[in-house]
Amino acid sequence: MNIQNPKTKIAAPQSVTTGPIAGSRKVYAAPASHPEMRVPFREIALSDASLAPIRVYDPSGPYTEDGASIDLKQGLPTLREDWIAARGFGAIEGRAVKPEDNGNVSADRLVAPCPAERKLRRSADGQRVTQYEFAKAGIVTEEMVYAAFRENLAREKALEGAAGRRADGEDFGAAIPEFVTPEFVRDEIALGRAILPANINHLELEPMVIGRNFLVKVNANIGNSAVTSGAAEEVEKLVWATRWGADTVMDLSTGRNIHNIRSWILRNSPVPIGTVPIYQALEKVDGDPLKLDWEVFKDTLIEQAEQGVDYFTIHAGVRLAHVPLTASRVTGIVSRGGSIMARWCLAGHRESFLYEHFGDICDIMRRYDVSFSLGDGLRPGSIADANDAAQFAELETLGELTKIAWDRGCQVMIEGPGHVPMHKIKQNMDKQLAACGEAPFYTLGPLTTDIAPGYDHITSGIGAAMIGWFGTAMLCYVTPKEHLGLPNRDDVKTGVITYRIAAHAADLAKGHPAAKVRDDALSQARFDFRWEDQFNLSLDPDTARAYHDETLPKDVHKVAHFCSMCGPKFCSMKITQDLRDEVRAMEEAARQGMAEKSREFLEQGGALYVPAE
Amino acid sequence: MNIQNPKTKIAAPQSVTTGPIAGSRKVYAAPASHPEMRVPFREIALSDASLAPIRVYDPSGPYTEDGASIDLKQGLPTLREDWIAARGFGAIEGRAVKPEDNGNVSADRLVAPCPAERKLRRSADGQRVTQYEFAKAGIVTEEMVYAAFRENLAREKALEGAAGRRADGEDFGAAIPEFVTPEFVRDEIALGRAILPANINHLELEPMVIGRNFLVKVNANIGNSAVTSGAAEEVEKLVWATRWGADTVMDLSTGRNIHNIRSWILRNSPVPIGTVPIYQALEKVDGDPLKLDWEVFKDTLIEQAEQGVDYFTIHAGVRLAHVPLTASRVTGIVSRGGSIMARWCLAGHRESFLYEHFGDICDIMRRYDVSFSLGDGLRPGSIADANDAAQFAELETLGELTKIAWDRGCQVMIEGPGHVPMHKIKQNMDKQLAACGEAPFYTLGPLTTDIAPGYDHITSGIGAAMIGWFGTAMLCYVTPKEHLGLPNRDDVKTGVITYRIAAHAADLAKGHPAAKVRDDALSQARFDFRWEDQFNLSLDPDTARAYHDETLPKDVHKVAHFCSMCGPKFCSMKITQDLRDEVRAMEEAARQGMAEKSREFLEQGGALYVPAE
Repeated sequence: MNIQNPKTKIAAPQSVTTGPIAGSRKVYAAPASHPEMRVPFREIALSDASLAPIRVYDPSGPYTEDGASIDLKQGLPTLREDWIAARGFGAIEGRAVKPEDNGNVSADRLVAPCPAERKLRRSADGQRVTQYEFAKAGIVTEEMVYAAFRENLAREKALEGAAGRRADGEDFGAAIPEFVTPEFVRDEIALGRAILPANINHLELEPMVIGRNFLVKVNANIGNSAVTSGAAEEVEKLVWATRWGADTVMDLSTGRNIHNIRSWILRNSPVPIGTVPIYQALEKVDGDPLKLDWEVFKDTLIEQAEQGVDYFTIHAGVRLAHVPLTASRVTGIVSRGGSIMARWCLAGHRESFLYEHFGDICDIMRRYDVSFSLGDGLRPGSIADANDAAQFAELETLGELTKIAWDRGCQVMIEGPGHVPMHKIKQNMDKQLAACGEAPFYTLGPLTTDIAPGYDHITSGIGAAMIGWFGTAMLCYVTPKEHLGLPNRDDVKTGVITYRIAAHAADLAKGHPAAKVRDDALSQARFDFRWEDQFNLSLDPDTARAYHDETLPKDVHKVAHFCSMCGPKFCSMKITQDLRDEVRAMEEAARQGMAEKSREFLEQGGALYVPAE
Repeated sequence: MNIQNPKTKIAAPQSVTTGPIAGSRKVYAAPASHPEMRVPFREIALSDASLAPIRVYDPSGPYTEDGASIDLKQGLPTLREDWIAARGFGAIEGRAVKPEDNGNVSADRLVAPCPAERKLRRSADGQRVTQYEFAKAGIVTEEMVYAAFRENLAREKALEGAAGRRADGEDFGAAIPEFVTPEFVRDEIALGRAILPANINHLELEPMVIGRNFLVKVNANIGNSAVTSGAAEEVEKLVWATRWGADTVMDLSTGRNIHNIRSWILRNSPVPIGTVPIYQALEKVDGDPLKLDWEVFKDTLIEQAEQGVDYFTIHAGVRLAHVPLTASRVTGIVSRGGSIMARWCLAGHRESFLYEHFGDICDIMRRYDVSFSLGDGLRPGSIADANDAAQFAELETLGELTKIAWDRGCQVMIEGPGHVPMHKIKQNMDKQLAACGEAPFYTLGPLTTDIAPGYDHITSGIGAAMIGWFGTAMLCYVTPKEHLGLPNRDDVKTGVITYRIAAHAADLAKGHPAAKVRDDALSQARFDFRWEDQFNLSLDPDTARAYHDETLPKDVHKVAHFCSMCGPKFCSMKITQDLRDEVRAMEEAARQGMAEKSREFLEQGGALYVPAE
């Protein structure tokens, strides 16, 4: 069926959303050991000058600088150029672009590639290249220093402000340190418990780390489909998603111009970009899974690795033997990659070429330091199918593959479900940790019920918060359009904010030393009726302010000691404030009189209060 | 500060939203023992005629009947009239309405009361009246029969369709039966583990039951404030909230015309109505907490009990001795009732009159069968204050009061927090069960982080799903406007749908025998590409359909075997369907050849698959 959608555009991207998030500014800071580094944070100043500004993690890149000057054709600054150059990788010509890379699109519908010029590199055989290889060799890379400081500055602030308020939490055996050192990052990567996705050809990347002992990360999916969406929209979605807090972005494009759209995305992305190479490989064989083979897949891996993709979803865990286990499911196989591979395996009654060539895949990915995101092709697509034999059989295979990839020097994370009722979520985490040697877990939701299409950011936000608490390192967002259509700009924002909530709730529950600072600052602002601070400290200041404006639009209401919910007479916080001085005076009196009062207190039968004189 | 809001209207309610929810119809059914009863359900027919329609719980009242004929001035049919009349309660004249009942509003701003005439009743001393008293006496009331059947018919359907798919779950010591009998409802009420809120003067009520061993319920708050909103809006909010699944509604009005607005709400409400009488009492003393006393409070209890309010939030657990425990909190006391009582106690350094008159309060509420919702006046208003000494001291007091209320024949549920990080949620449930003798828990959220005003339906939906799973019987919704403003119609709907998600996710995780039927039906429809069925089975068919229309608006797409997310070539479900027959044939062949193949299998080293011939 051929769909002509009027929205399909062939224009190259012209502009994207820029400028600071309301009430904050981008700041850069450097670790003492590397004064040349410019590690980004977002700083929220408070209206009470006696209070220190709050610094928060900021994956949004240069786009949120004040007066940001962005030229999409040039791409972002290549901040990793010197680090990578110093490692001595060989320059390569690069694979020539073929017509099928862009879906054999006709000239009048071809999106021009991003013209930004970059030197392409590939490591030689035996030449150390991945962050995992450096980590195992005891070498701390610049990327590790940068990522540690990034996790850390917020934490320094936390430690400063946390006097008397130690974080509590339940971390289920994780080992979150009080303070992140570069050495700690190196150690976690060497143990396989963290990855630092950073293709040597993605020079624009602001390095970040994904692991159970770091802040919980969020991924946003973008990408066109055969039905809708073009290049400019996808680059804007990238910028828009990271603006609101996406830590990585997956480009799941399956429509035309895949190669060229990806060039725009990568040259302009400050965050790691992930892809699912099998999608493009399938496009190259006219959408027929049975025509797939190792050669076309290998060619696609190299194509995308050269472009700078930071992690690949590889569905090598879908083995022939697993396919029949899905036969009695309510929703069969719901992963696109999984269904493609299942079809391929079953049609020829043969083992997956991804599984059989897994070593070769590792060797290609290692040369560019493309990290594995081992795909869960058999994830459950409904509550009924959660935690079934097919799902867990694949997970065991992913565990085997993890060890192979490590042996070949690659970084690995593991994808997880899907649709899982609450009581079955923890089992997913426990089995993943055991089967995959504590490699980082990266889950889609999970959705905790199937009955709310249109609200699956919420059904899945519940599961995401829980599995993040249990130890999942990165949460793949779900938008309100899940199961129904492609997300638009508003849906992307709603999905990202929902998942930032889930990730933060998880950090709080794990007892992350830095997490509670922002909650406390916002709640203190709320209690002090500093409305502007309350808006600015929130995940989405624009929406918070707009909602307040709906009932109390005037500026004077932004300093009012009440709100529209209760009105002035009924404001509990106002009443409590009136109360507070009185209570504190009582407390103080009680403390001072403690010794002499204690005998009296006991004589009166232990009543906490004695009548006033 | 006097705020004149142009939105304030004095018009009486004229009309409300009526008609069936898209794709479904209201049906009534009767238990065999009571053929005259008309117990409501919502029935969703499926496009595949071979599949039985799905019946779901329906709190929306006659408004969602096809061709509903509603006259707000007459109120809803008095379906309990005969049951109540047969119990022989004395008719009463009723307390005369006083000007202060409506906030001394001037004549030109007075909302006329609902003109529907009802016979008012009150039980005599020693005359059995509450559902708790009947239950303890071994008597099964009509309300119990009705509520049991209501919980049950969905479960009968579940049992029919559940062959081979037994529900699993973790219920943390609850005792959910395979099938709910009237006797089971009676027993749960007698044990204090459930309440059936049903004022004898709320004859329009469709009885329902709240308890850990029943479906998790959802409450929606409505109500005007001094700042905004009038009568017509509140009645529409009631109808709108129940349309989308609110099981009870609390009228938290604090503005003008409280008494008369309440008359419109009660006469037109099919669901239990809760209030917080201290709000109106405070209005009667010009908003000055220090002028409150037992007399004005008692007068308000009688006023509202006569009107038919089904449950009262009573903040009798805020004792003088608890107040100093809040002094070092980040957000002090955030419950309006709690802050009012704290102010009252502290100003005169005296014990709460609600605590001291608790027995008198019980005696008044018993006479009309108004249930207690023991208020958590010291609930935490921020992550920092969760599970602190003040909160748990009050909870212990609520436990004492529960036993007093039971001794005096009253039904009791217990309110809970608030703002609680995930790792501290379960402790709330465990302590509540222990302290309050398993009386039903009724929580607001809890919100799992403070940093997302504008999205607090989501921050709290996470906590609500979890605490519902742990055993909370009813979840009080939070709307996107929480902390920012009064919810409008869209906010109310979003809040209710979010909480229906939380409640359903909890039912699934508890292993409720009926819960999974709807998930399975929707997922099966999804897998079969029955798009209309998928929309109609969802919690919000209108939104699901609208989202699908955004990318694929044509009717033909509603039967298409793909969607806009992947397009036709990439649809995993389509690929899986193509696969399924093949897989099943293989399975069958495997089964038949099992015996003869097993030796061969082992000889080949246990590989699950042998190459095809």
